[in-house]
Amino acid sequence: MNDTVKYVLDEGRIPKAWYNIAADLPTPPAPVLHPGTKQPVGPADLEPLFPMSLILQEVSTEREIEIPGPVRDIYRQWRPSPLFRARRLEKALQTPAKIYYKYEGVSPAGSHKPNTAVAQAFYNKEAGIRKITTETGAGQWGSALAFAGALFGIEIKVYMVRVSYDQKPYRRALMETYGAKCIASPSSETNSGRAILEKNKNHPGSLGIAISEAVEVAATHDDTKYALGSVLNHVLMHQTIVGQEAMAQLEMAGDYPDIIVGCTGGGSNFAGIAFPFIGAQLRGGRKLRVIAIEPAACPSLTRGKFAYDFGDTAHLTPLVKMHTLGSTFTPPGFHAGGLRYHGMAPLVSHALDLGLIEAKAYKQVECFSAGVQFARAEGIVPAPEANHAVKGAIDEALRCKTEGKSKVILFNLCGHGHFDMQAYIDYFGGKLTDQSYAESELAMALAGLPSVPAPA
Amino acid sequence: MNDTVKYVLDEGRIPKAWYNIAADLPTPPAPVLHPGTKQPVGPADLEPLFPMSLILQEVSTEREIEIPGPVRDIYRQWRPSPLFRARRLEKALQTPAKIYYKYEGVSPAGSHKPNTAVAQAFYNKEAGIRKITTETGAGQWGSALAFAGALFGIEIKVYMVRVSYDQKPYRRALMETYGAKCIASPSSETNSGRAILEKNKNHPGSLGIAISEAVEVAATHDDTKYALGSVLNHVLMHQTIVGQEAMAQLEMAGDYPDIIVGCTGGGSNFAGIAFPFIGAQLRGGRKLRVIAIEPAACPSLTRGKFAYDFGDTAHLTPLVKMHTLGSTFTPPGFHAGGLRYHGMAPLVSHALDLGLIEAKAYKQVECFSAGVQFARAEGIVPAPEANHAVKGAIDEALRCKTEGKSKVILFNLCGHGHFDMQAYIDYFGGKLTDQSYAESELAMALAGLPSVPAPA
Repeated sequence: MNDTVKYVLDEGRIPKAWYNIAADLPTPPAPVLHPGTKQPVGPADLEPLFPMSLILQEVSTEREIEIPGPVRDIYRQWRPSPLFRARRLEKALQTPAKIYYKYEGVSPAGSHKPNTAVAQAFYNKEAGIRKITTETGAGQWGSALAFAGALFGIEIKVYMVRVSYDQKPYRRALMETYGAKCIASPSSETNSGRAILEKNKNHPGSLGIAISEAVEVAATHDDTKYALGSVLNHVLMHQTIVGQEAMAQLEMAGDYPDIIVGCTGGGSNFAGIAFPFIGAQLRGGRKLRVIAIEPAACPSLTRGKFAYDFGDTAHLTPLVKMHTLGSTFTPPGFHAGGLRYHGMAPLVSHALDLGLIEAKAYKQVECFSAGVQFARAEGIVPAPEANHAVKGAIDEALRCKTEGKSKVILFNLCGHGHFDMQAYIDYFGGKLTDQSYAESELAMALAGLPSVPAPA
Repeated sequence: MNDTVKYVLDEGRIPKAWYNIAADLPTPPAPVLHPGTKQPVGPADLEPLFPMSLILQEVSTEREIEIPGPVRDIYRQWRPSPLFRARRLEKALQTPAKIYYKYEGVSPAGSHKPNTAVAQAFYNKEAGIRKITTETGAGQWGSALAFAGALFGIEIKVYMVRVSYDQKPYRRALMETYGAKCIASPSSETNSGRAILEKNKNHPGSLGIAISEAVEVAATHDDTKYALGSVLNHVLMHQTIVGQEAMAQLEMAGDYPDIIVGCTGGGSNFAGIAFPFIGAQLRGGRKLRVIAIEPAACPSLTRGKFAYDFGDTAHLTPLVKMHTLGSTFTPPGFHAGGLRYHGMAPLVSHALDLGLIEAKAYKQVECFSAGVQFARAEGIVPAPEANHAVKGAIDEALRCKTEGKSKVILFNLCGHGHFDMQAYIDYFGGKLTDQSYAESELAMALAGLPSVPAPA
């Protein structure tokens, strides 16, 4: 018969501190540079955008940063999230591998994003901030921040990539149900948006453009700050509760991962599951393989250059050294909207450069096929982003079968696909194809990577 | 600050038996009658539709029926479900009441329905059944059975009310992702469906018609049985794990409910939360108020007659004594599709007749308003059906405020609204109105209630 193995931690075991991998890396990541002076930025340079407490987290090299009581208190609504052994999937694959998955879809917004949204809203509230601007692609991050804003009484304004705004009304409705305001980007509300619209009034938008708009509004209003859902050090750090819990849950199971798999857009869910384990390895613990899975249509880690680049299209953000496809790169439309960012978190990029992780790119049809196989075995329909991690884990499990090895595979199922059923309809109807990859190749060629050379 | 209070039971505390209220009722419910002979049915009469193990549960008067190991094993994927104290909602309402809610949206299909779907699939599998037919309205039940079918390797065929089939492609996509086959009802596949289509080839369908189709296919195929997602005794009984867990969780909290609120369509989620407490009261325990909330557009408990009626439109099912609007009653289109059934579970109807419960009807706009208030306080977006329970609980909490009483209110949040965001969009856009009630009045008048008089 089928059987379920779920590892539940008592709520007293929600981590008391976030883990900061900067404390354990053999070399620090390259400094963040001011877009004007090209010199390393100081905390004061970032103050128009973020409360000081988050800026200090961004540059901290302390190994542990205490999670404030009110944040842990809200985490308790859905944390510790469950860790499952995917026994039914293992049977379907007939693999000797043990597959574990951490499930972050249990949060109110349905993904890992509230882990950092709640923390960011808390620190902004502490700093007396009344409004936060942000951008969103598929809408997972926007709805997470909208949720957090509702809890703390902070107004949330979300610049949503226009193509998603039009095609994903349900994620937008979720943000509005939480009370957030959602604006199609590019919009006529900002200089960055107007500049794009002047050239093309039907511009479909991109994450880079939406970031420019949100940053511009925050930088020009005293009562308003900006929040980012991935890429930055403090955002990745907030997600490390995922990996810390998984470590404790695997200990309950008497196992330790040989292989960790996560999908990467900006890098935060991947870092969340992987960094605590990589840190343990760096401190002398067991060595493991850590695989970042990205979409072949937006392959920053596998095909981008490791160079300084802007985080946004209008070049309002600082310069960060990362794997990038160029800040003007616009990936073709594909369904994993949360993975459509031109760059990669500097810490994840640095980890790849140090050889601590591997990277692999998959096309979308094979990812959806894996997602459907997972749903039929485990009952949970993954988000299109998470399908990339599912595909990566299944491939490793099948390799174990070929090699006759019983390895322990851990992956992060970062969110459910309830708001993404149109993508599944397209997949079943044969409308979701891999044809856009030629378009992606062309876009990469035109982007002339990287768009910004490393400074002298 | 905001705070979360969650009561989590260890998985060893998933109930070991379902609770059967038939054992504690002062008088038994009226017998089920054969549609032809009008005499009480025997187990053999039901064999074309159900495996014998479920038929014996349907007529059992044992207080406890053991939950099979493999069923509990699957329950463990999401059970025990959490019980929350809605502290943030209490603060928003400024009520002295304590509001607790049991949250069933954590199941893979997102509602309480898998509690019985898994059990029914298990017993069918044990009986060697390879195919199950069923009907679905909004799609919650259909997707729950599709999930259970995938786990047990049983083919699931779902007759989905045509108007939902056309308007809710995402629930349909969920069923198909689980591997089920979904057919718009009325269909040309059955005599019942063809008879309707001959009169009106654009008939929007109804639950009563979809039941006729599913029953007809099961009755005429040896390898196929039928499954119902509510109404029947055994279905209500499978849901009692919800109330049993809530009782244990409230004990952890040191509380006992003064008032229990549940929404009622067919009656199963309501019975699930309420029957264990009503049973305790019947055995000499504390008396409580139990309130069934139904939609004003389909008010079987508050305005229907308590009489024998058919469960379906084509009159293929046995006759059951229940609160009914008449088996030909077609409620106007409104968003809580899961509450659009003409009748009510015989056990719930009987409980109302015995004075064990109260019933109250609400219009949909006020329910959505309550749902949005709940979402902004608690972070969870309820299904439209569950909004009725939310509205009922909020009203009781506000009454406590007026009366200055600190009562303990428990309600069942039976599912999330992730697949129902169009209804929220309509609500925010002012398109969701209460205008259809005149239509409902007319339909009730035309139905000439009840459609079938009680037999001599």
